[in-house]
Amino acid sequence: MPRSAPARAPITSPAAATVFTTVLTEGPVSRVDVARRTGLSSAAVTKAARPFIEAGYLEELASEGRTTPGAGRPANPLAIRPDREYFVGVKITGDDLIGVVTDLRADVRASAHHALKSHDVGHVVRALADLVGELLSGPTPDGTSNLRERAYCLGVAVSGDVDRASGVVRYSPFLGWRDVPLASLLEDATGLTATLENDVKALAVAEQWFGEGVGASSFALVTVGTGIGSALVVNGDLVRGAHGVAGEIGHVPVADGGPSCHCGGQGCVEAIASTEAILVRARDVSGEPALTMEDAVVRARGGDEPLRAVFAGAGHAIGLGLAALVNLFGPERVVVSGEGVATYDLFEDQIRRTFAVQAFGSAARCGLVIRPLPFEEWARGAAAVAIQSLFVAESV
Amino acid sequence: MPRSAPARAPITSPAAATVFTTVLTEGPVSRVDVARRTGLSSAAVTKAARPFIEAGYLEELASEGRTTPGAGRPANPLAIRPDREYFVGVKITGDDLIGVVTDLRADVRASAHHALKSHDVGHVVRALADLVGELLSGPTPDGTSNLRERAYCLGVAVSGDVDRASGVVRYSPFLGWRDVPLASLLEDATGLTATLENDVKALAVAEQWFGEGVGASSFALVTVGTGIGSALVVNGDLVRGAHGVAGEIGHVPVADGGPSCHCGGQGCVEAIASTEAILVRARDVSGEPALTMEDAVVRARGGDEPLRAVFAGAGHAIGLGLAALVNLFGPERVVVSGEGVATYDLFEDQIRRTFAVQAFGSAARCGLVIRPLPFEEWARGAAAVAIQSLFVAESV
Repeated sequence: MPRSAPARAPITSPAAATVFTTVLTEGPVSRVDVARRTGLSSAAVTKAARPFIEAGYLEELASEGRTTPGAGRPANPLAIRPDREYFVGVKITGDDLIGVVTDLRADVRASAHHALKSHDVGHVVRALADLVGELLSGPTPDGTSNLRERAYCLGVAVSGDVDRASGVVRYSPFLGWRDVPLASLLEDATGLTATLENDVKALAVAEQWFGEGVGASSFALVTVGTGIGSALVVNGDLVRGAHGVAGEIGHVPVADGGPSCHCGGQGCVEAIASTEAILVRARDVSGEPALTMEDAVVRARGGDEPLRAVFAGAGHAIGLGLAALVNLFGPERVVVSGEGVATYDLFEDQIRRTFAVQAFGSAARCGLVIRPLPFEEWARGAAAVAIQSLFVAESV
Repeated sequence: MPRSAPARAPITSPAAATVFTTVLTEGPVSRVDVARRTGLSSAAVTKAARPFIEAGYLEELASEGRTTPGAGRPANPLAIRPDREYFVGVKITGDDLIGVVTDLRADVRASAHHALKSHDVGHVVRALADLVGELLSGPTPDGTSNLRERAYCLGVAVSGDVDRASGVVRYSPFLGWRDVPLASLLEDATGLTATLENDVKALAVAEQWFGEGVGASSFALVTVGTGIGSALVVNGDLVRGAHGVAGEIGHVPVADGGPSCHCGGQGCVEAIASTEAILVRARDVSGEPALTMEDAVVRARGGDEPLRAVFAGAGHAIGLGLAALVNLFGPERVVVSGEGVATYDLFEDQIRRTFAVQAFGSAARCGLVIRPLPFEEWARGAAAVAIQSLFVAESV
C-alpha cells in the first residue's frame, strides 16, 4: 500500500491545481501574472498559493530574485522549490528497465538500468522494486536527507494498450501481457503511489509540461522507431480516443496499394518507415539478405544512392503522415523523435520537403522539431506522469 | 446595432450555462439527473435553473409530464420551452441564400431561399436582410405574437476561412471575399446579433447539440461534395487549429503519386473523390468529354462497370481518409454527409469496406453514419451556431 503523505502538495481545489501548475510550468511568475494567465482573481491566487508555500512546494522570490519571508507583495514572483519532492519514472521495454529520479521540474537527479531476464509479471515487479530501491537509496542533493524520504510517486511507461485510470496493462505485445493490474502490484512492492501510462503518451506529458509543449494549447509528439506512434494534445488535453485508440499515425494509410502492414491494412506509414520496414527494403534494393541496419546506415551516409533512396522513402511516408495529422488537427507544433531519429540526417530533409508540399495552407506554419530521443527520456516521461498525477488523479 | 434584450436567457455564470445546455440537449431531465451529469450540487442546479424558469426558457414538468407551478420537487423534470425564442440561420453559397427560422431546439419553423445576383458585399448584405425580414414576418405558432418579437440572434454560415470571434470572413473562394467584416454589417442591417461560422463547423455544431453528437465527447462530421471537409469535436470542443486550419480531411494524402490536387499536393482525398474529380475521371474512362454527372450517375446505377469503378474509387479514397482521421482521433462516431452523398448508394459499400480494412484495432468500433444532407440543413447549422452563441459568446 502507498504510504500516507500528510505534508504533501495540498491540492484542495481546481484553483489550487491551476495555480500550482502555472508556477510549475511557467514560473517564476508573479501572482498578478498567474491571475492574468489563469483568469483567477489576485485574491484567489494568493489564497491558493499560501498552502503550497507553507508546505514548502512554492517560495516567494524578492523582485530581485532573492527569497523573501512572509506573504510579500503580489508583484513578487512565485517559484517552485524543485527539491521539495522527488519522483521515480521507469520505462519497461522487452529487454530492460530504465529508471530515473527527477525533481518536481522533471530534471533528472539519478538514473539506472536493469536487464530483464524474463517477462514473467512477478519477475518484472521484483526487478522494478529493486531498481526503485537502488534509485532512491542516495542522499538528497542538499545532503539533509535521503531521496526516499521525499519520494511518494512512481510513474511507469509501457508500450501498448495501457489503462491509466485503472492501472492495468491491457495489452503489451513486447511483454506478451494481457490485463495485468501492474499499478497495484507495484504499489504493494514499492510503497509508492503508482501511475501507469502508455509510453508515447508519457513522453507527450513530459513535452507538454516541461518541453516543447509548454504554452502550446495543441501539439503532437511523433515517435519513429520499431513502431511509429504519436500522442496528440488538443486544448490542453491528451486525446485518448473514445474506443481506446488515438494517435496511431503509424497506421495512417498514405500509399494506396503500398506494402502490407501487420495491422491488416496497406500502405500504412509504419509499413514503409519503421526500422524493420526500412531494413527489409534496404536488403531488397542491395540484394543482400543479411545486410544489417548499421551497415545500411553507414553505406547510405557514404553516398550509396539506392540505400539513400530507401531512407528518403521512409522520410517521405513520415512527411505524408505528418501532413495528414497537421491538416486534420492543426497543432501549434509537432515534435518528431524516437530511436529511429538517431539516423535522422538520412531522412529529415525528405520529411520536411514532403510536409511542405502536402500541408494545407497556413497549416504549413506548424513548427516541426525533429530530434533524436535519448532512451532515458522515456523514463523521464514516466516521471512526468507521476508529477502530473499530483494534479489530475481525480479527473483521469 | 443589435437590439437590447432585457428579458432574455439569463446566462450569468458557467453553472447557469451548463445547466441550461444540459436541459436543452438532453432534457426533459430532473434536477437530480442534471446534478449527476454535470457534477454540480442539487442546490446549485436549482439556483441556476430558477432565473430560466422565471424568464420562460425552462419549465418544470410534473412527474407525469404535466406542467406544475412553483419550485416543485427536485425529481420533477426540467424541460425547454422551445418557442420562448427563435433563431435565424442563413447559409450563403455562391448562388443563393438559404434561410431558416428555428426554435430553441433547432427545429425548423420557417424557411426561404433568395437567389444572389452578385457577390458584391453590399448586395449580399441587403439580400440577406431582406431574407431575414421575410423569414421573421410570420406569426408565432401560438399566434400570440410575431416571430420577430422573439428573435434576437442570427447565425450565418459561409464556406472558407471564417473568424468567428471577430465576425470577419477572412477568405471565401466562392464569393471572392477577403477580410469582410460581415457580422457587424449584418447587425447594422438586421438589428439582430450576428455570429459567423465556417459552414462545416456550423453543421458540426448542429450535430453536436441536436444530432448524432449529443452525448458523445468526440465525433467528426465529414462533408463530401464540391469540396471535402470535416469538423472535429474533441472533449466537447470544436478543434479550430492553432494556425486556423483543422479538419481538412479533403487534403489528407492517401495515394502517394496519385492525382494532383488544387492545393499543390498529390493524392489528396479531394483530388480523387470531389464531385469535380469524379466527373473528370468518369469522362476519362467513358471517353465522353461531355458526359454530365447526372448521366454518369444514371449509367453507374444501371450497371456500367467502368463508371461504377470510378464511384467506388472515390469511396475508397474517402474510406482511407476516414481511417486516417479515426486512427489519429478515435472519435466515438463519424457522420459522413454532404451533397455528394446524394449518390451514396454508389460508394457507401466501398467507404465501409476500406474503412474496415484500414481502421486500427478497436478504432473500427467507431460508428459510421452515412447519409444525404438536405441543403436546408446548412442553414439549420447556422441557426444552431446562433443558439450556441447564447452560451459561449465569451469563450469563443
